[in-house]
Amino acid sequence: MNAELIDRARGFAERELLGRERWFDSKPPAPTAASAALHAAGLANWWLPAEYGTAGASLTDSVDIVSELSYADAGFAFSSFLSVLGTTMLRLYGAPALAEQYLGRMAAGGGFCGILVSEEDAGSELGRTAALFTAKGDRLVLDGDKYFATNTDAADFLLVAARSAEDDAVFGVVLVPRDTPGVEIVKRWDMIGMRGSATYQVRLSGCEVPAANLLRGHGLRLLEAGLNASRILIASTAIGVCRRIRDLAMEYAAAKQVKGAPLLGNAVFAGKLGQVEMLIDVMRNQCRSAAAEFDRAMASADPAAALYRAGTLRSALAAKMYCGQAGWEVATIGSELFGGLGYTHDHLIGKLVRDLRYVGLVEGGDDVIRDLLYTRYVIPTAKRR
Amino acid sequence: MNAELIDRARGFAERELLGRERWFDSKPPAPTAASAALHAAGLANWWLPAEYGTAGASLTDSVDIVSELSYADAGFAFSSFLSVLGTTMLRLYGAPALAEQYLGRMAAGGGFCGILVSEEDAGSELGRTAALFTAKGDRLVLDGDKYFATNTDAADFLLVAARSAEDDAVFGVVLVPRDTPGVEIVKRWDMIGMRGSATYQVRLSGCEVPAANLLRGHGLRLLEAGLNASRILIASTAIGVCRRIRDLAMEYAAAKQVKGAPLLGNAVFAGKLGQVEMLIDVMRNQCRSAAAEFDRAMASADPAAALYRAGTLRSALAAKMYCGQAGWEVATIGSELFGGLGYTHDHLIGKLVRDLRYVGLVEGGDDVIRDLLYTRYVIPTAKRR
Amino acid sequence: MNAELIDRARGFAERELLGRERWFDSKPPAPTAASAALHAAGLANWWLPAEYGTAGASLTDSVDIVSELSYADAGFAFSSFLSVLGTTMLRLYGAPALAEQYLGRMAAGGGFCGILVSEEDAGSELGRTAALFTAKGDRLVLDGDKYFATNTDAADFLLVAARSAEDDAVFGVVLVPRDTPGVEIVKRWDMIGMRGSATYQVRLSGCEVPAANLLRGHGLRLLEAGLNASRILIASTAIGVCRRIRDLAMEYAAAKQVKGAPLLGNAVFAGKLGQVEMLIDVMRNQCRSAAAEFDRAMASADPAAALYRAGTLRSALAAKMYCGQAGWEVATIGSELFGGLGYTHDHLIGKLVRDLRYVGLVEGGDDVIRDLLYTRYVIPTAKRR
Amino acid sequence: MNAELIDRARGFAERELLGRERWFDSKPPAPTAASAALHAAGLANWWLPAEYGTAGASLTDSVDIVSELSYADAGFAFSSFLSVLGTTMLRLYGAPALAEQYLGRMAAGGGFCGILVSEEDAGSELGRTAALFTAKGDRLVLDGDKYFATNTDAADFLLVAARSAEDDAVFGVVLVPRDTPGVEIVKRWDMIGMRGSATYQVRLSGCEVPAANLLRGHGLRLLEAGLNASRILIASTAIGVCRRIRDLAMEYAAAKQVKGAPLLGNAVFAGKLGQVEMLIDVMRNQCRSAAAEFDRAMASADPAAALYRAGTLRSALAAKMYCGQAGWEVATIGSELFGGLGYTHDHLIGKLVRDLRYVGLVEGGDDVIRDLLYTRYVIPTAKRR
Repeated sequence: MNAELIDRARGFAERELLGRERWFDSKPPAPTAASAALHAAGLANWWLPAEYGTAGASLTDSVDIVSELSYADAGFAFSSFLSVLGTTMLRLYGAPALAEQYLGRMAAGGGFCGILVSEEDAGSELGRTAALFTAKGDRLVLDGDKYFATNTDAADFLLVAARSAEDDAVFGVVLVPRDTPGVEIVKRWDMIGMRGSATYQVRLSGCEVPAANLLRGHGLRLLEAGLNASRILIASTAIGVCRRIRDLAMEYAAAKQVKGAPLLGNAVFAGKLGQVEMLIDVMRNQCRSAAAEFDRAMASADPAAALYRAGTLRSALAAKMYCGQAGWEVATIGSELFGGLGYTHDHLIGKLVRDLRYVGLVEGGDDVIRDLLYTRYVIPTAKRR
Repeated sequence: MNAELIDRARGFAERELLGRERWFDSKPPAPTAASAALHAAGLANWWLPAEYGTAGASLTDSVDIVSELSYADAGFAFSSFLSVLGTTMLRLYGAPALAEQYLGRMAAGGGFCGILVSEEDAGSELGRTAALFTAKGDRLVLDGDKYFATNTDAADFLLVAARSAEDDAVFGVVLVPRDTPGVEIVKRWDMIGMRGSATYQVRLSGCEVPAANLLRGHGLRLLEAGLNASRILIASTAIGVCRRIRDLAMEYAAAKQVKGAPLLGNAVFAGKLGQVEMLIDVMRNQCRSAAAEFDRAMASADPAAALYRAGTLRSALAAKMYCGQAGWEVATIGSELFGGLGYTHDHLIGKLVRDLRYVGLVEGGDDVIRDLLYTRYVIPTAKRR
Repeated sequence: MNAELIDRARGFAERELLGRERWFDSKPPAPTAASAALHAAGLANWWLPAEYGTAGASLTDSVDIVSELSYADAGFAFSSFLSVLGTTMLRLYGAPALAEQYLGRMAAGGGFCGILVSEEDAGSELGRTAALFTAKGDRLVLDGDKYFATNTDAADFLLVAARSAEDDAVFGVVLVPRDTPGVEIVKRWDMIGMRGSATYQVRLSGCEVPAANLLRGHGLRLLEAGLNASRILIASTAIGVCRRIRDLAMEYAAAKQVKGAPLLGNAVFAGKLGQVEMLIDVMRNQCRSAAAEFDRAMASADPAAALYRAGTLRSALAAKMYCGQAGWEVATIGSELFGGLGYTHDHLIGKLVRDLRYVGLVEGGDDVIRDLLYTRYVIPTAKRR
Repeated sequence: MNAELIDRARGFAERELLGRERWFDSKPPAPTAASAALHAAGLANWWLPAEYGTAGASLTDSVDIVSELSYADAGFAFSSFLSVLGTTMLRLYGAPALAEQYLGRMAAGGGFCGILVSEEDAGSELGRTAALFTAKGDRLVLDGDKYFATNTDAADFLLVAARSAEDDAVFGVVLVPRDTPGVEIVKRWDMIGMRGSATYQVRLSGCEVPAANLLRGHGLRLLEAGLNASRILIASTAIGVCRRIRDLAMEYAAAKQVKGAPLLGNAVFAGKLGQVEMLIDVMRNQCRSAAAEFDRAMASADPAAALYRAGTLRSALAAKMYCGQAGWEVATIGSELFGGLGYTHDHLIGKLVRDLRYVGLVEGGDDVIRDLLYTRYVIPTAKRR
């Protein structure tokens, strides 16, 4: 474990993020100055290989980095790590020159990679994607509407999931520079939580890119490879937010009297915090275990092949689903701890509950995840363990 | 059951409230024009005896009236029924002339009765109330800070829980006309949900009222008598909000395709809605049963004595706690049903989840209610049933 | 409410059942002497109309009678009330002479009516019933294997669900006297709980009965009419068992010290018991409300038509599902309350947990009930309330 | 990971345990022939250092060994691993000669170490232990009654928690050879589940042992050091039992038809199994992570000091509590999956549910664990993470 790096992330969060929760919750223009500060601290895109000049952290370390950032603001954490979904795909399945060019630029500038996958009608079902790419000489032309896309506006480049106009069975992922003519931000969504990040509805109209911008392999498999990383880090945001709730509760209990005694010594309160502590420990170990599995695949002889074959990792699915559920249990406990004040915007708990809710919703709701676990890991006898 | 009255409430909600959810959620100035419309429809303060010229509904009927109003906006419903807590105390324990004067005026004008009980340090522990009333000839002088008080600004009169300055053991409830010099609205709280209602922090400084404004009996007992009614109706708001979630889900499912088939026919979706329907039915029956118990006490020979003796009713405690928990189960299911859109302010579900949260928090969180149930109804062997 | 009758049931339970839990749990031969004692006490088949010389209780009163019996032994209660499923069908849909003959005999002797519905392959899906009835002059011949059938061996008569051999679409219910040649008890099941009742696997081979023994109407509708009553009383067993767990817990807590203080004063313990008390109150009100709806239908001008039209009542479905879930919550709490001793057969809690489990399983598991609620009461807009 | 060893454990379970569940559930005399077979397979006391001639597995590997054994019979697994609690204490805090003598004998014979801690009045509160040890020259005399003690009868030696008769504040752990005069088995408990293991009530009357048999250090700290290992392996039994439930469910679903289609393709069933798969993955990762933390402490320069200082490990507490809760969630799902047959002793699920229940009860119920987590890891700010 890279303790120095995690300490740096904690220090950054304390210095640049803590105390600014209300501001992040106000849906500030993206990217925020905090993103620039993250870059200045040498932490932007920390998971990219160190040869790009970044911190070069493993996904295992990223779990704790995300926990530290999310302790202060989960939305900021989300916008800071979500590019991992795209950069993983680009590193593994992009032409080397393409990867080097775009990852290098992104690392140098502390920029973002946007992911354009979800569509209004398709929801989480990637197989129903309607966006199209059409071959035109040695160029590809992209057209389509994308529903929820985070970081798009500030991104250096976008990775777009689309179907071949020539062959309905071909589903690919194409790199589109953000400044390509035809990329239009339709609107920024007004989200319930995670308002320190920015998510957009986007339209692509005749966006032309070189044919070499098409990543190798079937789009669904590429996405599954990348989603392993992002789902684990989404799960990790729950760790940070739940730690924050725990600490806020302890602060409150130190000051609060119940039945003439400090709340801190109240057995019912103690029981709730004991349960929360257990959940935090289990969340952390599940995220770290899943991340370690991902890191092992990335350290294998041919990570692109290994992850292409593995597809969506059981441990990553379990991490996201578990942290969504455990996080919601903590949110439910937390939202009852602070009395009437906890039901006002004068208290932070409301924001934390809203932020936590996203873990179970993004990149596959629980029904989708359960279905994937069943189909991939329960039905095939050989995969059971 | 007064079906006509409940139909009238439903009609009112459809006409005056439905479709204005965003406006109610914007924390509009109180009271809203909708309150005037409720009065115009003959529904304001519907639970007051018909001799005051109101609809004269039983608490049992009030369960369904609140459900109909809450279907559209729970905050509006809350502000419309919460006066029941005070009017119940005034009817039962106020001097007849006092009750007639203030209830009559309130019924005629469609006004409100504010309740000033909670304090910053005391939280839900009424026994720790710090506000004081001091005898001064045939007058009483009230001083103290009250933390959460709904409808105060627009109220005709306030019922204030306070301790006697002369005798710390004497705890009473005093009627203070809203326009009494010294009643100061410190601020309106910015609540997380129920934003169609208005809750205030209030200061009383040397407010003088006639000594006859002191209600008969120990303040805690009076409050418990009144809380029976308001807790049952708070519980009932959950019925309305959950019915709304169910109907929104069915609307969504009629349009939504999953795996190439309408969501309406999806077995997992069906199972969730079946569970929701069960919870709604149980909430409704619990609220109606508790309300019927209250109505029986009010119809007894000496309702003031009956409720003073009974104190807090088991069924009313159970109704509030159950509806808080069942409502949160529905909120949790509901907040996962609508995909990504359900995590934006473009969809109503976020507001409904925030509104639902209050049921488990106001007028005693679950820990307080569990403690009351244990102390009053489990410990005494004779009370067990 | 017939308080005298309920008191009589309580007295009977205290006198004849309490303290004999281990014996009931030993799977004693059926019927037990306790059944004869119930008849001697004038309580056997208490729900039959008083003109048959029984106690003539409403279903609403039956909720509390079942709660009192189940407090002592839920298996005994189950065997005592389950005939209500068949007697309801016979009263409403049997030829008057047939009903009078068999209900009269059963009332006089304190006997039982067995229900033969479930089959090994069909499970809870009544529509897949394979047993057949064949017309043979003015006789019907029944053949088929039935899987779970309670009280069969000791019954006066059986009501058998079967399909017409001539017309696959015709599904009927036929009364078969227990002593009809060809009725064979294959085995008595060794159940996990409810061992004070007796459930059998049964084979019918060429059982001949008069054609007039076929009840009027479609078998599924008849069953649904009768299941309303039995499901509500199955739900009611949970009330009794949970009350017993509560009282055992209080007895234990009066004697037990934790951290140098009586468990009775422990806040965590108090919180659990407060939650249990709430659940008991809600279960009781739901069962009574559902029973009252059934009683209203039975008191209508044409109860047979009313229940045929209504089919399965929402409130009865909700009662069974809710009490199964709430009962299991109490079972889970209870199974943790008694320390290591609670994990031995020296303590009663193990039996109570096993008994409680059946509520969610018999006469439709939760998945089946949720599906019924969705199909019958959520999909049809007009049925929503 | 020692895959060969885990495979050996799986092979052993398939060969010697699978299919004998009913026999294990019959409370067979202890130790069973299967224990001898485990020794013959070189697997008895597998966690002892390899220099004793055992398999020499880490605790991390033990998680999977226990999962494999518990897949077949959790009671057998429990009796096979529980000695780890005592051997850990003896290795770390016993005089070297004492440890070598007794661990060597136990390893050679495939024997057991009994732990005598719990008492009838003290429950899980070790601080209230009443058993005494009295110095008598260079001998110690032990007296006291112990309530729940597994493997005692068949054990080579016992580790007894007792208080000094001379100084009430001194609380120690003393090694007592099983054949010491005065060790009396009062009775074998009739447990609800885990009946393949044997747990006894034991009396010590004037048992004399050498003074050197007193382990070094405060008894509570020694126990906490050892409980880390046993709690993690108790948690691990839940993994095996839940895997078994999953596989039984899949077998059942392959044969069962619902609504004319195989249950295997039913979306509600798939959702339940997906949830179960998630829970299994999280349980496994938590147990492995906790075991790895324990293994790191054991591999440190001075493991006795390290574990004495650390006391009860957060991860071990979290593992036991989490697996108890998650296991019960799986038990609840599983107990509803198999229809009516699942409520009979003809089906295995009843036993599995009874077995699972113990995880949340032994070696500290959830209330005790929550209190430990709160006191040790939440209250001290420096320990929070």
